[in-house]
Amino acid sequence: MLSPRRRWQVGKLPLMSALERLKERTREISHLGSAAAVLGWDQQCYMPPGAAAARADHLATMSKLIHEKFTSDEMGKLIEEAARETEGMPFESDDASLVRVIKKDFERETKVPTELVAEETKTTALAHEEWVAARKANNYKHFQPWLEKIVDIERRIAEARGYKDQIYDALMDPFEPGMKTSEVEAIFDAIRPELVQIVKDIKDSGVEVDSSILHRKYAIDKQREITNDVASRIGFDFKTGRQDEAAHPFCTSFATSDVRITTRFDENFLSGSVFATMHEAGHAMYEQGFPEHFEGTPLRGGASLGFHESQSRMWENQVGRSRPFIEYYFPVLQEKFPESLGDVSVDQFYRAANKVEPSLIRVEADEVTYGLHIMLRFELEKEMIAGRVDFNTLPELWNSKMEEYLGITPDSDANGVLQDVHWSSGIIGYFPTYQLGNLISAQLWEMIRGEITDLDDQIRRGEFSNLLAWLRKHVHAHGCKFEPADLIQRITGKPLDSKPYLTYLRSKFGTIYGIK
Amino acid sequence: MLSPRRRWQVGKLPLMSALERLKERTREISHLGSAAAVLGWDQQCYMPPGAAAARADHLATMSKLIHEKFTSDEMGKLIEEAARETEGMPFESDDASLVRVIKKDFERETKVPTELVAEETKTTALAHEEWVAARKANNYKHFQPWLEKIVDIERRIAEARGYKDQIYDALMDPFEPGMKTSEVEAIFDAIRPELVQIVKDIKDSGVEVDSSILHRKYAIDKQREITNDVASRIGFDFKTGRQDEAAHPFCTSFATSDVRITTRFDENFLSGSVFATMHEAGHAMYEQGFPEHFEGTPLRGGASLGFHESQSRMWENQVGRSRPFIEYYFPVLQEKFPESLGDVSVDQFYRAANKVEPSLIRVEADEVTYGLHIMLRFELEKEMIAGRVDFNTLPELWNSKMEEYLGITPDSDANGVLQDVHWSSGIIGYFPTYQLGNLISAQLWEMIRGEITDLDDQIRRGEFSNLLAWLRKHVHAHGCKFEPADLIQRITGKPLDSKPYLTYLRSKFGTIYGIK
Repeated sequence: MLSPRRRWQVGKLPLMSALERLKERTREISHLGSAAAVLGWDQQCYMPPGAAAARADHLATMSKLIHEKFTSDEMGKLIEEAARETEGMPFESDDASLVRVIKKDFERETKVPTELVAEETKTTALAHEEWVAARKANNYKHFQPWLEKIVDIERRIAEARGYKDQIYDALMDPFEPGMKTSEVEAIFDAIRPELVQIVKDIKDSGVEVDSSILHRKYAIDKQREITNDVASRIGFDFKTGRQDEAAHPFCTSFATSDVRITTRFDENFLSGSVFATMHEAGHAMYEQGFPEHFEGTPLRGGASLGFHESQSRMWENQVGRSRPFIEYYFPVLQEKFPESLGDVSVDQFYRAANKVEPSLIRVEADEVTYGLHIMLRFELEKEMIAGRVDFNTLPELWNSKMEEYLGITPDSDANGVLQDVHWSSGIIGYFPTYQLGNLISAQLWEMIRGEITDLDDQIRRGEFSNLLAWLRKHVHAHGCKFEPADLIQRITGKPLDSKPYLTYLRSKFGTIYGIK
Repeated sequence: MLSPRRRWQVGKLPLMSALERLKERTREISHLGSAAAVLGWDQQCYMPPGAAAARADHLATMSKLIHEKFTSDEMGKLIEEAARETEGMPFESDDASLVRVIKKDFERETKVPTELVAEETKTTALAHEEWVAARKANNYKHFQPWLEKIVDIERRIAEARGYKDQIYDALMDPFEPGMKTSEVEAIFDAIRPELVQIVKDIKDSGVEVDSSILHRKYAIDKQREITNDVASRIGFDFKTGRQDEAAHPFCTSFATSDVRITTRFDENFLSGSVFATMHEAGHAMYEQGFPEHFEGTPLRGGASLGFHESQSRMWENQVGRSRPFIEYYFPVLQEKFPESLGDVSVDQFYRAANKVEPSLIRVEADEVTYGLHIMLRFELEKEMIAGRVDFNTLPELWNSKMEEYLGITPDSDANGVLQDVHWSSGIIGYFPTYQLGNLISAQLWEMIRGEITDLDDQIRRGEFSNLLAWLRKHVHAHGCKFEPADLIQRITGKPLDSKPYLTYLRSKFGTIYGIK
């Protein structure tokens, strides 16, 4: 006997098209995903310490359910039927895009055996703890067997997914759909020597930027007010979002109408919180900008992590660390912190916020050196996955690249090869998206400046609505309908290009450091 | 073809007993319930205003999934098989109790047609808005058709569930398992005249208690510190819980290791926040006290809403509003608020916190009059469900009972028949549990005082661990293994009894008001 609930469904389903049923299914999966995201947010913002184990169980159940629902045979059939129903529709249409996006994800997810996914989940859960211990003890050897195990698992996952060119393609694809390793290599190869040269020129310029003013005393409750203020001014909508505090700043989204950002405070470092907020608000405004009718569909999402990062970097760097923005906002900061900023000029603050200096830790790197940190990781990941790395010598490999690109050598593995959480979590193929984001942001920025010709003046007056409207129209409105290479072409009429990025850096830091 | 995930499951299941599989199923359902509870907590504590619609969708999907999973045919079969497997086990055993509890819930849930559940959900969602509007406009007529509709739906739900004696039994059962309307009637009939008499005696005593000191200025940030402090002192564990702020104080629990309470602040009312916190902490310590191995099972939960309320009331009233507690804690309050409490004595504060005065609003009522508010609602609900109420005259019925029990007449329907949220949400059968909680707390309290003979002295020294340990052992350790009538008998050796409650009130308020 069917239960009443199921009898009711059976009576209802035949009236709907496969596409409609597919949308209903994906809506349910999307809602479960949103619920899991709320749990993740709470875990990082408010959860009491003793609840960690229970929360892990709850999240595991949610993930399992989502995975089961998404990879079910029924879903596969629905996708096939819906694909037939939407065959003649334009590529750009919402329905054709929806089916295209789901189909690709479904095929990737179902190719990997469940046992392998379970092995990945279990291994990375354990490995994460071991990485924490290893980093704390500055003991790479302790982590090495786990890293080897994880790389082996990721390699098998990549093999299961399949690839045409390089194995690393299969790992990058979930983060940067359609992007090929060879394309990233070509781009990175073009910018690496340029970045190394800029760093060298800056060093040789003899110009010393004093950033000590950012490390004066900045009361945390005032920083909290300022970070909410700045997010609000640039366009983050607090009616459909909020900002909290977490150990690591992040943005998460439960719906277009519910986007959360976090920041962190250090009483002795002002720009840490302010620019982290602008960065996360950039992600968040992307999430707040998806069309309403994408809600509950897989189209509600950024085109790629690179595109997402383009939005965060643009608001953090092209806007936040720009001269016009600092001319606009520095007086607000000065009024809030008269003791610490009363004797500081706009120029001093601008230069301090843009100090370039090779350093060991990626997340603390400036606009110029950041890309070199990424390239180093990209290169090592590729080699590891391709089986070309002797794990015994990985720290030396890391250190020699640091020396080559940045001219500095890590004082410890904790500040070197062990510094990032990604590998211990099985996240390989993600790093390049950070730098692709920088490139995309520069390419978009060049175009925006061509279309909003008085953008600097607008920013200087605290007007961000035209900029945001441009991003809404050209970037946000598409959600993840198009793969990133397609989207950048559609928007700018050109493929992804490293020139705008290099021009931007040369121009900005050339002025600050009096080079070229 | 089966998907990999399902192939793996099929290979695994035959090795497990039905009981084990049932536990696995209920664990999954429990985790989904926890996730939904996190969403509910966030909704009331942090969610941005614009997210309401999306959150409602997410919660609806979660509820639907939980309901589907719980009422599936497969679940029915597993329960039957597990019942056979546990047949010979002792009634008190965890496994027998687990099957017993699930079986009862399953049978109740599956008896109600899905269409009727859907009608209830839809109608109450709309009715809630109408109730808000009606209360705001003080317009009972506006809400009346909705109330009639809801009562009709609840009556049909009760009929579907079935009952032996009175129809109201079927509505009370989910909240107070096994409790019969006739039992509640007998108890309430015994205490009603006594309460009316105490209220009258207090009025006639001529003693005036001045509670204006509670309405002086109490800075909210200091109240926040005090409410965290008091919760911590009485035994609420902040390692496995936290306190936030919400419009209406509540307690919610995602796991034994993750229990959240909320309170609210009014700068001009101190005891509102302090006693609300103690009340919610009482609920929370029950939730923090379940055995670890109940986690993820349906046994993790209070025996009934009445039992839950017995814990909150005990910590709020028998402890918090007692003379020994106020002797202990008033100096802390005085030190925190020297301007407002510097000239106040312990005695003044104790009397102010225990002022008895008939008032219109249930949630603001004191210990003595509270029960009369409940009885009024219980009587009206019973009559409505039995079809013996003319809805045109409901406000007059309400007002005449207020006059009869409390000697006051509501100045408006907003402060009368429209004041509570329950009916608009389809919650009928819940109200009596508040008063049952008062009775249970008094009956337990009497026993505790017999066993911990120096309890007053312990409280006066701020020692609550023996009291909490007693509750852990005798109440919390059982979760919801036993129905409330069974549990009170097991603990106290007697059925639920109104005498301890009446003795407690007579003794406490007799002293304060110099009566009898």
